[in-house]
Amino acid sequence: MSMTATDNQCINTIRFLAVDAVQKANSGHPGAPLGQSPMAYVLWDRFLKHNPHDVDWPDRDRFVLSVGHLSAMLYPLLYLTGYDISLEDIKQFRQWGSKAGGHPEYKLAPGVEATTGPLGQGFAMAVGMAVAERWIAARYNRLGYEIFNHFTYVIESDGGMMEGITSEAASLAGTLRLGKLICLYDDNDISIEGNTDIAFAENVGQRFKAYGWQVISIDGMDLSAVDEAIRMAQADDGHPSLIICKTIIAYGSPNKEGSASTHGTPLGEEEVRLTKDNLGWTYEEAFTVPSEVLAHCRQAVERGNKQQQEWKKKLSEYQKAYPLEAEQLEKDLRKELPQGWDSELEEMFKADDNPIATRKASGRVINKIAQKVPFFMGGSADLAPSVNARLEDCGDFSFQDYTGRNIHFGIREHAMGAIANGIALHGGAIPFTSTFFTFSDYMRPSVRMAALMGLQVVFIFSHDSIAVGEDGPTHEPVEQLMGFRAMPNLITIRPADATETVEAWKVAMENSKSPTALVFSRQDLPVLNRKILASASGLRRGGYVIWDAAKKPDVIIIGTGSELHIALEGGRLLKDKGIMARVVSLPSWDLFDAQPESYRNEVLPPDMRARISVEAGATTGWERYIGLDGTAIGVSCFGATGKGEVVYEKYGFSAQRVVDEVLRLLHRK
Amino acid sequence: MSMTATDNQCINTIRFLAVDAVQKANSGHPGAPLGQSPMAYVLWDRFLKHNPHDVDWPDRDRFVLSVGHLSAMLYPLLYLTGYDISLEDIKQFRQWGSKAGGHPEYKLAPGVEATTGPLGQGFAMAVGMAVAERWIAARYNRLGYEIFNHFTYVIESDGGMMEGITSEAASLAGTLRLGKLICLYDDNDISIEGNTDIAFAENVGQRFKAYGWQVISIDGMDLSAVDEAIRMAQADDGHPSLIICKTIIAYGSPNKEGSASTHGTPLGEEEVRLTKDNLGWTYEEAFTVPSEVLAHCRQAVERGNKQQQEWKKKLSEYQKAYPLEAEQLEKDLRKELPQGWDSELEEMFKADDNPIATRKASGRVINKIAQKVPFFMGGSADLAPSVNARLEDCGDFSFQDYTGRNIHFGIREHAMGAIANGIALHGGAIPFTSTFFTFSDYMRPSVRMAALMGLQVVFIFSHDSIAVGEDGPTHEPVEQLMGFRAMPNLITIRPADATETVEAWKVAMENSKSPTALVFSRQDLPVLNRKILASASGLRRGGYVIWDAAKKPDVIIIGTGSELHIALEGGRLLKDKGIMARVVSLPSWDLFDAQPESYRNEVLPPDMRARISVEAGATTGWERYIGLDGTAIGVSCFGATGKGEVVYEKYGFSAQRVVDEVLRLLHRK
Repeated sequence: MSMTATDNQCINTIRFLAVDAVQKANSGHPGAPLGQSPMAYVLWDRFLKHNPHDVDWPDRDRFVLSVGHLSAMLYPLLYLTGYDISLEDIKQFRQWGSKAGGHPEYKLAPGVEATTGPLGQGFAMAVGMAVAERWIAARYNRLGYEIFNHFTYVIESDGGMMEGITSEAASLAGTLRLGKLICLYDDNDISIEGNTDIAFAENVGQRFKAYGWQVISIDGMDLSAVDEAIRMAQADDGHPSLIICKTIIAYGSPNKEGSASTHGTPLGEEEVRLTKDNLGWTYEEAFTVPSEVLAHCRQAVERGNKQQQEWKKKLSEYQKAYPLEAEQLEKDLRKELPQGWDSELEEMFKADDNPIATRKASGRVINKIAQKVPFFMGGSADLAPSVNARLEDCGDFSFQDYTGRNIHFGIREHAMGAIANGIALHGGAIPFTSTFFTFSDYMRPSVRMAALMGLQVVFIFSHDSIAVGEDGPTHEPVEQLMGFRAMPNLITIRPADATETVEAWKVAMENSKSPTALVFSRQDLPVLNRKILASASGLRRGGYVIWDAAKKPDVIIIGTGSELHIALEGGRLLKDKGIMARVVSLPSWDLFDAQPESYRNEVLPPDMRARISVEAGATTGWERYIGLDGTAIGVSCFGATGKGEVVYEKYGFSAQRVVDEVLRLLHRK
Repeated sequence: MSMTATDNQCINTIRFLAVDAVQKANSGHPGAPLGQSPMAYVLWDRFLKHNPHDVDWPDRDRFVLSVGHLSAMLYPLLYLTGYDISLEDIKQFRQWGSKAGGHPEYKLAPGVEATTGPLGQGFAMAVGMAVAERWIAARYNRLGYEIFNHFTYVIESDGGMMEGITSEAASLAGTLRLGKLICLYDDNDISIEGNTDIAFAENVGQRFKAYGWQVISIDGMDLSAVDEAIRMAQADDGHPSLIICKTIIAYGSPNKEGSASTHGTPLGEEEVRLTKDNLGWTYEEAFTVPSEVLAHCRQAVERGNKQQQEWKKKLSEYQKAYPLEAEQLEKDLRKELPQGWDSELEEMFKADDNPIATRKASGRVINKIAQKVPFFMGGSADLAPSVNARLEDCGDFSFQDYTGRNIHFGIREHAMGAIANGIALHGGAIPFTSTFFTFSDYMRPSVRMAALMGLQVVFIFSHDSIAVGEDGPTHEPVEQLMGFRAMPNLITIRPADATETVEAWKVAMENSKSPTALVFSRQDLPVLNRKILASASGLRRGGYVIWDAAKKPDVIIIGTGSELHIALEGGRLLKDKGIMARVVSLPSWDLFDAQPESYRNEVLPPDMRARISVEAGATTGWERYIGLDGTAIGVSCFGATGKGEVVYEKYGFSAQRVVDEVLRLLHRK
């Protein structure tokens, strides 16, 4: 299908809405939309299965603009096809309160499937969406009833292609043969510092062939070529497809075509005018949308409605033929935890059990959860056996069997996080990831995106401190806990034993508003005796008094994770000396700080200033609870090699140390 | 050259020292050394140019074991060839105090060129070493005088190949045509979760060809093949080389050969015995080193001495022919800052100058530095124009011209950090990197490695807060400052204006013991009038009283970066109301906390508890200075889109807010 006059008008409308928006904001990226609008238009006008009036239709195609700084091109597409975003929003591009934010924001602008901007993450989230689609399709589709069968499209650029996360995700997508994943790669040879040759001489197509992708190279501004390429991509069910679209940055700009300067700087009023002239855009006024363009593009609503109606019909037939499956599918999509999903968790661990590492306790808990919650799935960056993150008898997610609930992400932490985000964005699953806590640094950017988008993803981390021991400092987290606590909208929990681990998992499964990071010990820890101590359910409030030596204590000892045991032991030793301690378990700052002040003051009375914290991590920040007068027992340098218990002791973690520091604090030593 | 009986004995010695060490420690990775020892042996015995008695010889070949968890194989190589590590260290593998740490540690074990463990970073550091080699060679070598001409070897594994950082670094190495970089890739098909097929079906060789590498595939356990392949790799001056070495994990183990279980678990006493039998190792005792093996391998010392003597002879001829160059080269290697290197910095910025963003001030400062310090170089992850991180008239580092001092890293933050670390490890340069502060997350793992190794690398970050504005929350750092402050051995500095920027750069250039992170504003900031305010040199102590309204103030206002201006303005407004404030500039917690207590108490008197902090970042942690009774003005959620000044104001950053909070704090409101 070649270009009609209407096509041309539509494309120019997208182009100049983008260019005008950038010009008005005097901020943004005008160059690439001039080159990319044709391919985006073809995709949205001829292929994308979506209903702009129902952004939650589960089987819609997913579209991710991984190159998030081209948001100025996305908002026109959303507006023209009928999403709930206005021309006024576009005029207010990049301004406070507009749906047309600087980068596309999930939840802010309807139709934005993922927040993008940090390069490469959109691509990896698209891989996650394609994973979710195949997973749900494999579990629920039946012969003649293809309830899930949609594509995931992503537009990527040179920048994203350079990022390691894209390589990670692309390699996994090839391994998993995600045939319904289609990437349009805008190969315009330009990045901020100049021609991409200076840093990026590789053959991207060859690289993607090596990953097992179908690779198609076209003139990205030739509509027929784009059309044909997308058809080829759709037709290849066994491989994800990369369509390499050669485009020209700032296409049509008489003086700036092909120039890196147009990447992130407005063209200027005069050049905008010249470009419009040059491309035959005759409208004087900025933000002009010709009525025939709007009429043409808005057909998306009717088309989408019709497609969704057909799907609903299919779904209702499916409901008749497979009522149980249909019911469960709906629950999956609502992420509805079944009645009594946690009923067996409570009694799993007892005080007279053998000591058990919280990572191992977690491994047992997630297997109980998996039995009850069919939409709970996830995997590990090649550390499932160490982190204890395998769902037994739940199969592996692979191209041979897409029903598996264990994903082998490979040693690709950053992509793992983003893929899990993509699964959560797609819906129909609560995904988890897992790796060592020290490698949380590798995936920090995707944890941040989960927090920013408010996604329910459970990030499992084990080997949580210098007590790791033999692997040495590279594998011993120190500053990671504090780093996560500083991140907005993330709930970080470091349970002290198996019983707190159970509670932590309950929080994670019920927290649908944000991601949860669970931080587990490598080493075995006693199961705390809850007959003597306060109930582990206190974890749900983030912090709680676990033991009081007396009604009016002399000192508060605050512990988290493995150090809570030292805190408790220290408290008992102090009692023998006649010093009365209150021991507070503070597994989650985020949950605790969200409690009413009255509760927080009950746990940590403002007038009790003799406070000591003990945690095998950075001390910077502990003053939040111990103040200027307290003492923080922690780790102020990197770890070291040795047996875990030796390193632990050398770094000063013992009940005796707690006693000594308390005595010093109370000036009794 | 085929395998002699001695070769066989040497290889078995390496194998069983590794296996015995793991067995004795009951911890470590025995499988891969059984398969990899042949290739490592060939490299070390026949090719590696090094002097075990002088680990600082500048023109030695560099060897990086990127697969750091195979440290058990590296220590035998070091011991056998004569480095200062004993058999006893190997017997104490993974124990407290041993040079044979869980993962190879730079500075702990002589001959370890880089700390490795976090996968892929070793590979990227090797790329950095190869960059440094070419850079120095291009600037100092003269016809007939090849003072710098060494190879960089790296052993990588499946795990490293999956990590995104490896892709980033490999693509850049191909673009830069680093012909003296040679990677032996141990392709044993096994990772922790099983066969690599489950997550890694790609064609690695094809991928590296796409990057522009020479790719050679061999049987990695065939000595002649390894020998020939290394020669081929050395011969190709125009491309880095990847030697894909097929090996068998746990080679020789009758019951465990090829099994994933041998990756990270000791073989067990019985299986060790069987493996030794099977490979013809007849020694009963663990840790046996046959005398002929030691004699053979220790020839490395004599060989290395001789090579180094030849090099010294060449150097002394060079010194005669090119005395100025030789002298400067020595200074470069010592990183000796020239007399008066900073003399022009002091007077660069004046109070009556136009307001200037600290990123722009930094851009001017680094250009002054570059004029005086020839071994100062670095680059950006495609954001040099935005971060102001270009050294003008200093050329681009490219295959056409390796003398350039600006590296176009491409959009590869993680690799950028590790490559800079590799340059610092190589010596002869103080490297810097640069990107937006929000993307510091992408490179956090390599910043951590710089801190762990104590390397002088300057990490420049700009666009430091929500004041970024139009780019929205993905591009607005919130928690990054606190995250870096929690990291051991990293000096983080957020200067408040151009004059503090100058001081920050002085600290960074003189701090040879650790990396420095410099955090700059996007927005323009007034140049503070140091005639009225305290000198910016106070920055060197991390924090200082910049202004006192009265001798005995009522309240302390602590500010950093752009918020110091608000703090000062708030202080002035308060004075008008009769409330006397002390304003403290606290650009670096790390530097301040390292000051004597007396100084810290002078700045923040312990009895003055009415304290308020103002910083456009996470508040969690500020209690370190404001205590339980203070008020932290900061950002407790993610940012938003809008004009920078609008977002800033909406988030409550204004002098009036400071005034209001002080009044509330003092209960006067």
